[in-house]
Amino acid sequence: MPYEFKQTRSVEFSDTDMAGIMHFAKFFCFMEATEAAFFRSLGLSIFPQNSEREVGWPRVHADCDFKRPLRFEDSVEVHLLVREKKERAITYTFIFRKVNETPVTEVARGTIVTACVTRDPSNGRMIAIPIPEAIAGKIEVAPKELLT
Amino acid sequence: MPYEFKQTRSVEFSDTDMAGIMHFAKFFCFMEATEAAFFRSLGLSIFPQNSEREVGWPRVHADCDFKRPLRFEDSVEVHLLVREKKERAITYTFIFRKVNETPVTEVARGTIVTACVTRDPSNGRMIAIPIPEAIAGKIEVAPKELLT
Amino acid sequence: MPYEFKQTRSVEFSDTDMAGIMHFAKFFCFMEATEAAFFRSLGLSIFPQNSEREVGWPRVHADCDFKRPLRFEDSVEVHLLVREKKERAITYTFIFRKVNETPVTEVARGTIVTACVTRDPSNGRMIAIPIPEAIAGKIEVAPKELLT
Amino acid sequence: MPYEFKQTRSVEFSDTDMAGIMHFAKFFCFMEATEAAFFRSLGLSIFPQNSEREVGWPRVHADCDFKRPLRFEDSVEVHLLVREKKERAITYTFIFRKVNETPVTEVARGTIVTACVTRDPSNGRMIAIPIPEAIAGKIEVAPKELLT
Repeated sequence: MPYEFKQTRSVEFSDTDMAGIMHFAKFFCFMEATEAAFFRSLGLSIFPQNSEREVGWPRVHADCDFKRPLRFEDSVEVHLLVREKKERAITYTFIFRKVNETPVTEVARGTIVTACVTRDPSNGRMIAIPIPEAIAGKIEVAPKELLT
Repeated sequence: MPYEFKQTRSVEFSDTDMAGIMHFAKFFCFMEATEAAFFRSLGLSIFPQNSEREVGWPRVHADCDFKRPLRFEDSVEVHLLVREKKERAITYTFIFRKVNETPVTEVARGTIVTACVTRDPSNGRMIAIPIPEAIAGKIEVAPKELLT
Repeated sequence: MPYEFKQTRSVEFSDTDMAGIMHFAKFFCFMEATEAAFFRSLGLSIFPQNSEREVGWPRVHADCDFKRPLRFEDSVEVHLLVREKKERAITYTFIFRKVNETPVTEVARGTIVTACVTRDPSNGRMIAIPIPEAIAGKIEVAPKELLT
Repeated sequence: MPYEFKQTRSVEFSDTDMAGIMHFAKFFCFMEATEAAFFRSLGLSIFPQNSEREVGWPRVHADCDFKRPLRFEDSVEVHLLVREKKERAITYTFIFRKVNETPVTEVARGTIVTACVTRDPSNGRMIAIPIPEAIAGKIEVAPKELLT
């Protein structure tokens, strides 16, 4: 199912702040790590290390709604869903669920919009390009009912 | 002018990622640091250390639009503007401007919505409360023309 | 074997810096996360969330020798070994091995010294105390030959 | 005096952890930021952005002794001293002093050893090289009495 991916991770001590909860900026790192794992699950890398890197994925937009706090050693499932696939950009929805409690509850929901870019050889600047077929062909948009 | 606050800071090495630019999650830390400095400029602390802490300010929502990258040693002005002041929440707009280049350009624009909460003594949970007058009385909503 | 613990983790994008490698400060976060997992493997928490927390473990010393870089998506085994157990402090050695390459090589080696403390009820300050038997009884010092 | 440099900075909310104090890994980021500021004070950059970058400064060793905690909004002076200058490496001592309290006290003391490297054009690997005179000539070893 190339329109979603889930991974579960623990809140670590260095993710917390003095309010005793996971720092809000870390939710964005959790989203990004899940996006990278989604790419790996497709046999791709979000940032290949070899000389063949043709494209990069800078963030254009990110947001998050925080509903309940996460605490140290909580287990959180991060559920990535492909919300939109445009010619030069992908929009992901991320649903955070605290899974070490019954019932499992949604604690946060976020978005990352990322553009497909390459380096313009003439001046070194990043320019948006169509997502290469080798990537676009592996990614589908999730059914609407999963996104609401 | 208690509806805005500006601070300029440098992008540090630990703010960067392997794409050679400031990591997108750090923009949220810069917003939060500016909010804390805004409170200090009003004679307040966003998180008092002594026993008198009555209220906390958990994040309810955060977003950011990224327009141009920031790089190591760039100077960025973070401009906080109070966009909305409700009974139990404040919404801030943050405008990021790269100031070590002429012309100065807006590189990102973000939002934090933060709720005013206190701890319910009966069960220890956080509950939203009206912003105390000692704080609300010091904060104004910015003129609309500054927010567009 | 309550004198060692191993966990393997991936280098994430937000762990990297503009030099294209894992930022050196992140090695300390990896050490700490492994210490917390070691405690969980013993049925303990390094920082219990409930009201029964009697002791804390502030860091007294930390060091790391960096031999080879780690890069995005590298798999690194973090091997904790108890080097010393004193009445009021524990010293851990951490050996980092890059395991997604043959032969597996040691890329870094670090230390954390952590003191066992509790809050002095008379003034709220932290004071060192003997490690409670419920914890000390579960932790052994590793054989010398594993530490060299 | 090219053997020392001081900067004062505030502990930010995102520097703290759930123990209510600055997270220990952040001390290393503060050291590194002070090293970068020291270089800027000499008209240099620790990581030039243009194509002229000849050398890099990977960390070979880092350590820190933590004596007293730092808390949110504490002001800390980070005092860099050049402890050793070898042909291919520099060792810095960093003394952390909490300056928003009287008397000012030393709260931590750390070390970074950094090697001067360049990229071997034949295979892309980093190799240690003598520190270029344009840099070495600007940096002196601090008097011993400042280091004890």
